[in-house]
Amino acid sequence: MSVLITGIGELTTNTEAAGDALVIDGEQIAWVGNAQNAPAADERVDVEGRAVLPGWVDSHTHLVFAGDRTAEFGARMAGKPYTAGGIAVTVNATRQATDAELAEVVRKHVAEALKQGTTFIETKTGYGLNVPDEVRSARIAAEHADEITFLGAHLVPPGEDADTYVDLVRGEMLDAVAPLVRWADVFCEKGAFDYDQSKAVLEAAQAKGLGLRVHGNQLGEGPGVRLAVELGAASVDHCTYLSQEDIDALASSQTVATLLPACDLSTRQSLPPARALLDAGATVALASNCNPGSSYTSSMAFCVTTAVLQMRMTVEEAVWAATAGGAQSLKRDDVGVIRPGARADLHVLDAPSITHLAYRPGVPLTHSVWRRGERSL
Amino acid sequence: MSVLITGIGELTTNTEAAGDALVIDGEQIAWVGNAQNAPAADERVDVEGRAVLPGWVDSHTHLVFAGDRTAEFGARMAGKPYTAGGIAVTVNATRQATDAELAEVVRKHVAEALKQGTTFIETKTGYGLNVPDEVRSARIAAEHADEITFLGAHLVPPGEDADTYVDLVRGEMLDAVAPLVRWADVFCEKGAFDYDQSKAVLEAAQAKGLGLRVHGNQLGEGPGVRLAVELGAASVDHCTYLSQEDIDALASSQTVATLLPACDLSTRQSLPPARALLDAGATVALASNCNPGSSYTSSMAFCVTTAVLQMRMTVEEAVWAATAGGAQSLKRDDVGVIRPGARADLHVLDAPSITHLAYRPGVPLTHSVWRRGERSL
Ligand SMILES: [Zn+2]
Ligand SMILES: [Zn+2]
Repeated sequence: MSVLITGIGELTTNTEAAGDALVIDGEQIAWVGNAQNAPAADERVDVEGRAVLPGWVDSHTHLVFAGDRTAEFGARMAGKPYTAGGIAVTVNATRQATDAELAEVVRKHVAEALKQGTTFIETKTGYGLNVPDEVRSARIAAEHADEITFLGAHLVPPGEDADTYVDLVRGEMLDAVAPLVRWADVFCEKGAFDYDQSKAVLEAAQAKGLGLRVHGNQLGEGPGVRLAVELGAASVDHCTYLSQEDIDALASSQTVATLLPACDLSTRQSLPPARALLDAGATVALASNCNPGSSYTSSMAFCVTTAVLQMRMTVEEAVWAATAGGAQSLKRDDVGVIRPGARADLHVLDAPSITHLAYRPGVPLTHSVWRRGERSL
Repeated sequence: MSVLITGIGELTTNTEAAGDALVIDGEQIAWVGNAQNAPAADERVDVEGRAVLPGWVDSHTHLVFAGDRTAEFGARMAGKPYTAGGIAVTVNATRQATDAELAEVVRKHVAEALKQGTTFIETKTGYGLNVPDEVRSARIAAEHADEITFLGAHLVPPGEDADTYVDLVRGEMLDAVAPLVRWADVFCEKGAFDYDQSKAVLEAAQAKGLGLRVHGNQLGEGPGVRLAVELGAASVDHCTYLSQEDIDALASSQTVATLLPACDLSTRQSLPPARALLDAGATVALASNCNPGSSYTSSMAFCVTTAVLQMRMTVEEAVWAATAGGAQSLKRDDVGVIRPGARADLHVLDAPSITHLAYRPGVPLTHSVWRRGERSL
């Protein structure tokens, strides 16, 4: 089954491919070019001058969770104390949820993201924090998301000893989860895991053949970025507080700096130094960090809008970061781009250009979406 | 024709009215209370636990325009010079457009706003800047919007003498437009109209029986707020740069401070001091300032989200400001509230509470909308 899409007003491919038309064949892009040279196809769709870009690649989410933290968020916004909050609330609820309940949360959020143009999504474990709950989190995540990350080292479970827990994570827990995931991640931050603990977990994961990611430099400057670069991690995420050394280290590495602006806004922090990173030559990705505590959004468009309006990224830089940048952080070259052979993941905007993603903040601009060649909207 | 709406998970009325159900009769709310006491109705709709609030009241837009300024916006975001831009571009295009073209622009944006929960909308003239084009702008606006404002004093048309133009605006132009509008407005700012010119226009309008509004303190501190309070204007809009005297003057007046955060972000300015205004006791409204130059959004949800995440307003304050606050700035007590006798303008969220408007930034949360008792989504 092939589809010829014509009438593309502006085509963003993130590759050399260019034109005003393209052909989807099965799950892949088969051809890109000008309509007058188009090959035959079974079906034809005219997008009437709309902009077409790759579907968003959301490279950082935490979707395997249960429980409701709306009241905690509201209290934070009202400047009121709220002692019953925090990740531990989500951990407790997640452990108590049934498999079916957890699967429904993941499914619902992946579907919500897809409606907004996200066609490729990473998600993580990290609210189980014991062997059986981390294993089932990874298994359930894999049923609905494209890439799965093991984040047993999200925090030390309340009441447990940090070093004992690190040994569990890098030992029995890693052994059990590794066959189900491609990535391992650690929250390297004051209050979570220090440099040595983080390194121990990541090295064990690397030895198991997993790719590495790091949550770092979210709440203040710290060793997260340095560690990520040192171990050749694919990505270091947050990067809200960076020293010049961190920026230089990222610029001279293959590690992607994944920025999570919705998280910084939702916690009323500063936004990350995107312009300094780009000017230094670092590779920047944008992701939602969708999770019920610090960033409960699935809107990649909001991240792009914020990056342009408030982080001095150009529209082109922000769109690249939210598509090809996310793909690069996951070492995927088949998504986040439009070219023959890439996955047929397309986002059609109800606007003539990607500039409207920042020019029209908050206006829902997703017109239609194809994922793996299947039209879902 | 009456409709009983039940299953309201959270009802925001901005009045004493409370409950989990309400009845619409014709164009009005007829009853609010608990479902078990509900009167009979012709039809019944169960909103299944969703939050219901008054439709947004967008009290500040500029929808009578023609022309495209996307490239100017993109250049601004890329930090590039763009000499061909500015309001004059829109003025030229607007003058050259046909009535039908202008009407279609207004209609399209009002419809786009309605889909996002805006059930009451103010719009302005101000891209005609001569007698015939200001008159037809007002006439066309009135066909689609709820409240119309005369903004002949938007800027001095290029090449014209300021004082001569002010005399035209307060004389022949006002005479011609006044019968078509309820409000007069002036852009009191360096580069537009100074205190004396602004005052002359507003006093002439007041003498004609029009209510007053002011664009002020957008680009720097200036006399706009002072003038608005002095003349008893219903609203002074922007308020981005305020002195302590401005804040005190607003707090001890009936003039609403209408904040336009999407505009500040779209021009990469500071956000207005909402917290200081509220703490001093001023009345705050939020509006979109939808226009093709400085704020091309129709999303009131984006304004609310920004107000909470970045201007330290609580969710309740921001939602009030975007509904009842806008209504107060337009001296309307029949919209922006839910109570028997109010206009049946309802916004149903695809969320259990209004907190989600800030908790889930960028996620389209409008589930359904009633305007004047008619379901439009
Ligand atoms: Zn995270
Ligand atoms: Zn305005």
